[in-house]
Amino acid sequence: MKPLGPIPAGYDSIGGELAVGGKPASALVEQAGGTPLFVYSADLMRRRMAALREAMPSQLRIHYAIKANSYQPILELMEGLVDGFDIASGGELAMVLAAGQDPSKVSFAGPGKRDEELQAAIGHGVTLNLESENEARRSLRIAGELGTTPRLAIRVNPDFELRGSGMKMGGGAKPFGVDAERLPALAREIIAAGAEWRGLHIYTGSQALDAGAVAETQGNVLDLAARIAGESGAPLPHLNMGGGFGIPYFHGDEALDIGAVGSELAKRFAELPAELAETEFAIELGRYLVGEAGVYLTRILDRKVSHGTTYLVTDGGLHHQLAASGNFGTVVRRNYPVAIASKFTAEPAEEANVVGCLCTPLDRLADQALLPHAEVGDIVAVFCAGAYGASASPSAFLGQGPAREMLV
Amino acid sequence: MKPLGPIPAGYDSIGGELAVGGKPASALVEQAGGTPLFVYSADLMRRRMAALREAMPSQLRIHYAIKANSYQPILELMEGLVDGFDIASGGELAMVLAAGQDPSKVSFAGPGKRDEELQAAIGHGVTLNLESENEARRSLRIAGELGTTPRLAIRVNPDFELRGSGMKMGGGAKPFGVDAERLPALAREIIAAGAEWRGLHIYTGSQALDAGAVAETQGNVLDLAARIAGESGAPLPHLNMGGGFGIPYFHGDEALDIGAVGSELAKRFAELPAELAETEFAIELGRYLVGEAGVYLTRILDRKVSHGTTYLVTDGGLHHQLAASGNFGTVVRRNYPVAIASKFTAEPAEEANVVGCLCTPLDRLADQALLPHAEVGDIVAVFCAGAYGASASPSAFLGQGPAREMLV
Repeated sequence: MKPLGPIPAGYDSIGGELAVGGKPASALVEQAGGTPLFVYSADLMRRRMAALREAMPSQLRIHYAIKANSYQPILELMEGLVDGFDIASGGELAMVLAAGQDPSKVSFAGPGKRDEELQAAIGHGVTLNLESENEARRSLRIAGELGTTPRLAIRVNPDFELRGSGMKMGGGAKPFGVDAERLPALAREIIAAGAEWRGLHIYTGSQALDAGAVAETQGNVLDLAARIAGESGAPLPHLNMGGGFGIPYFHGDEALDIGAVGSELAKRFAELPAELAETEFAIELGRYLVGEAGVYLTRILDRKVSHGTTYLVTDGGLHHQLAASGNFGTVVRRNYPVAIASKFTAEPAEEANVVGCLCTPLDRLADQALLPHAEVGDIVAVFCAGAYGASASPSAFLGQGPAREMLV
Repeated sequence: MKPLGPIPAGYDSIGGELAVGGKPASALVEQAGGTPLFVYSADLMRRRMAALREAMPSQLRIHYAIKANSYQPILELMEGLVDGFDIASGGELAMVLAAGQDPSKVSFAGPGKRDEELQAAIGHGVTLNLESENEARRSLRIAGELGTTPRLAIRVNPDFELRGSGMKMGGGAKPFGVDAERLPALAREIIAAGAEWRGLHIYTGSQALDAGAVAETQGNVLDLAARIAGESGAPLPHLNMGGGFGIPYFHGDEALDIGAVGSELAKRFAELPAELAETEFAIELGRYLVGEAGVYLTRILDRKVSHGTTYLVTDGGLHHQLAASGNFGTVVRRNYPVAIASKFTAEPAEEANVVGCLCTPLDRLADQALLPHAEVGDIVAVFCAGAYGASASPSAFLGQGPAREMLV
């Protein structure tokens, strides 16, 4: 038996079934027209944002990093919840524009920006988080050609990392941003060239669950930003402090204590150095805002036994759930939170392996999981599916195509 | 420094550039309209098939498993080269039909087949490789509803595996096929129900480079098929012996000796037991037919140095090259064969990291690689991109979208 990850708080049952947004899984599937289906809960996203606003200092702006989930109804919902949007490509710029967002609230980071992406972003007044001196000069040239004043920030490659983060994006040589010691010169160059100076972007890692580590890193980010502001001799209008707020995926993971993060940050904000006195602060969160608010529903097509092992074969799989299958940035595969949605309140009764429909042994949704007895036709739920599910999986693999999605 | 994988044979240079199909990389990119671009060589695929025909016993049929690459011009090319097609979904059935293939030469394996997929396949006369007793009964029921005689084979979960294969698909409990000891009863049931009996499908693993292991496994497959045929009391019309032929991706990998595989198989074919005297034999190959015939071209957008490490940032990445990035069934990331296509004949001059344009540290195309000095605008080639590239990668990730593809 291998343990399953913890089912996020906020999910109910109706008539013994998993319910989202007041509807049982079977009704949601019927409404959507079938499985596989991603269901996203607007209520859980609103509650998550409310809890964050409560925990964080009031002057902290909260941005949504749309890479986590760019489903258009979610972008529209977030419009009323967050203070800005972070994008990572021209494709994502088109998505925020299609969802009616104000591009002046958008910033664009990414180590490889094409000329046409820079043109579109500068033309719409998006803030660019510049990743290199080359990119700074390309942006100034393109803005000149467009006859526009570009809004430019610089992404910093910090000298420290976010302890315990799932993905480290600072500390040593990195393809992201400009090494901290080269920042002041580049900032002065950009300001001298007449750009609208938008400050710094310091992203240190993602998917951290330790409040102490997040708070320590936020402190380091503030110290570094103050040092750079001092050395560059220009006030810092804006500081994107990055994200890093993780969610529990696996057995033993505990939720990040955002109250502790917020109170430590409030202490730091109460004693800001002069260099940061006029600075606007933001964090950018993706997974933390939407990850636990999504569930992936997939129907059991076959129940089979091979050499005494039970397999529940579903109509979904790694083509929608690459990370849950253990094939995206994972060294050792562990089980996500998984349940039988159509028997959500039933007692666990057997050990089973939940697999996808793909003809590859990589397509595993739950290994050796203790689950209620499930039959053909039952619906499996994979939780923590709101972030990096639909958009971060190879949906065309084996001719499958994308899953349905709905926001309820 | 970390070594690069071996560049496949058959690639030339023109004017110092990598050339495919008689055209230099820059001309191919111009013709396609830009990067990132998959270029597939029809000539290399034809040569590969010719070498296989030469090496294998003449009565062995060779099928193409389209999951490796279902780009329509490749399916059309394969029509004239192979003896059949293997598909893994209803989506792939639509693709072979769109490419004008004869569905009677198509077989369909996959552990989770939906009713509508069974309906379409049975209706078109595709052979189903049944994965379970349940699926057999569903197929018989659907065929009855359609008023059609279904063409049914059974996929066997063998008691042995392919030694040294990249993915084992036999030996112990598996979600694929029916355990060998349950085969005879199921075969008798299907035949008694009036289906057209199409024999067995025995797939033991993929991506093996050791000819001895492949030959040993093919021998085991023949022994198992003979045993099952004897126990089921019905002649075996067809045996799909699976695939497993690997290609060299990494430093130190050596090409599979297909001559040795073929001569061992010829010996076995010369002394077939009575149960297999009338059997038609096939292997199904995907990666081996197309993998080395494809190259992924991506342009350098930035060249940057961080703490002494050089990064070449390209406009491609893991959204088209998930496996090359080390995120698909890999425990330890190793470098695929990678070169500077626009300076293909230049001497290596520096150590550099080739990364994609995505804002994630997972997006690595070559780590600590010894390469010619490359600048912004140069084109990087990732080899072994003909299989499981475009279709097995999360192309929508970060709003990027699919790469261009061309067959030359």
